Amino acid sequence: MTRYRLHNFFRSSTSFRVRAALNLKGCAYDYVSYALRAGEHRAPEHLRLNPQGLVPTLETPDGPLGQSLAIIEWLDETIPEPPLLPADPWGRARVRSLAHAVALDIHPINNLRVLRHLETEFGATEDGIAGWFRHWVVETFDPLEARLSSERETGRFCHGDAPGLADLCLAGQVLNNRRFDLDPGRWPTIARIHAACMAVPAFADAAPENQPDAE
Amino acid sequence: MTRYRLHNFFRSSTSFRVRAALNLKGCAYDYVSYALRAGEHRAPEHLRLNPQGLVPTLETPDGPLGQSLAIIEWLDETIPEPPLLPADPWGRARVRSLAHAVALDIHPINNLRVLRHLETEFGATEDGIAGWFRHWVVETFDPLEARLSSERETGRFCHGDAPGLADLCLAGQVLNNRRFDLDPGRWPTIARIHAACMAVPAFADAAPENQPDAE
Repeated sequence: MTRYRLHNFFRSSTSFRVRAALNLKGCAYDYVSYALRAGEHRAPEHLRLNPQGLVPTLETPDGPLGQSLAIIEWLDETIPEPPLLPADPWGRARVRSLAHAVALDIHPINNLRVLRHLETEFGATEDGIAGWFRHWVVETFDPLEARLSSERETGRFCHGDAPGLADLCLAGQVLNNRRFDLDPGRWPTIARIHAACMAVPAFADAAPENQPDAE
Repeated sequence: MTRYRLHNFFRSSTSFRVRAALNLKGCAYDYVSYALRAGEHRAPEHLRLNPQGLVPTLETPDGPLGQSLAIIEWLDETIPEPPLLPADPWGRARVRSLAHAVALDIHPINNLRVLRHLETEFGATEDGIAGWFRHWVVETFDPLEARLSSERETGRFCHGDAPGLADLCLAGQVLNNRRFDLDPGRWPTIARIHAACMAVPAFADAAPENQPDAE
């Protein structure tokens, strides 16, 4: 059985996505931790694997691969069961559009490196940074809640009754939100789906607090 | 033949990606323009199609679809020729990792709504905003240039000798960079690939200056 090596950080929500995906696919992996606040991911040995110097990176039999969504799509193509995307193109499009709303329209803007840059370039205070984080979550979670609560394809999870790509992104974001004093009650469908995700061992085992480098 | 309707804006690089993808696939489409600076994309009639209120949205026979990457992956699954992703999973992973470096690690942070929020929340000046934009381009284009110039899969385009998903994202970003005084000579391989893209009519026809709403 192939064994993977995941370069990641317990608190990173993009790392969470990949850990939970590996767990769903039943893939064992070695855990390599990088303390992001200390800049360990910018060390030459990690840059050789991931020239962008970002976590996560998955070492595979074919080589190292960065970008969490690219990793998850690759896992889904190389290990078909259980599928993380529906079989039909329109269902796949829906799941990707939900996943990308989180993965493109929230996470990149609220990433640690961006929050830090706000501080160094514009003198943002801790309160200013927290307000920034919350703003981008609300901007996307409000319409996401509207979609998930009204579209008939929503089931126990974002799309039907099995967890997939959109759930990986959504659950990681909800976990991230805990540190920024957001009220989960504002988005009841998202909260319900998140609870369903965290009841799945593959998700629970991937949670930040259950990683070896958790503080 | 199916006719699509694209809700977009000439200068938006995510809109550019989808326009060029539709052109590559030989799909005719109606062009609906939203002046982003005037907030037209937040009007109720667009929110009904795209609850996030973001461009682009593609109206398809199956319904409206947002998120440029989800649209492009859907086009590629429903209209296989010419392919925008390689056939082999590792090649697909490479192309997605290149595309996502631009689409996740540059564009969302440099989006108009984010630049505006910098101004209103932190009093960023025009120079401060331009510096922010350039910072995130450099952070990703430097390692992207290193990958594209050294990896054997790079050809006339990002992956081999036909344009695909990574080229759509890269070309759109290079077009965006023109407004922020970045020196393309810093990234010769990216500049070469961009020139190859813009020599393809599907890309040239999608350029901002060739759209009906161009200013």
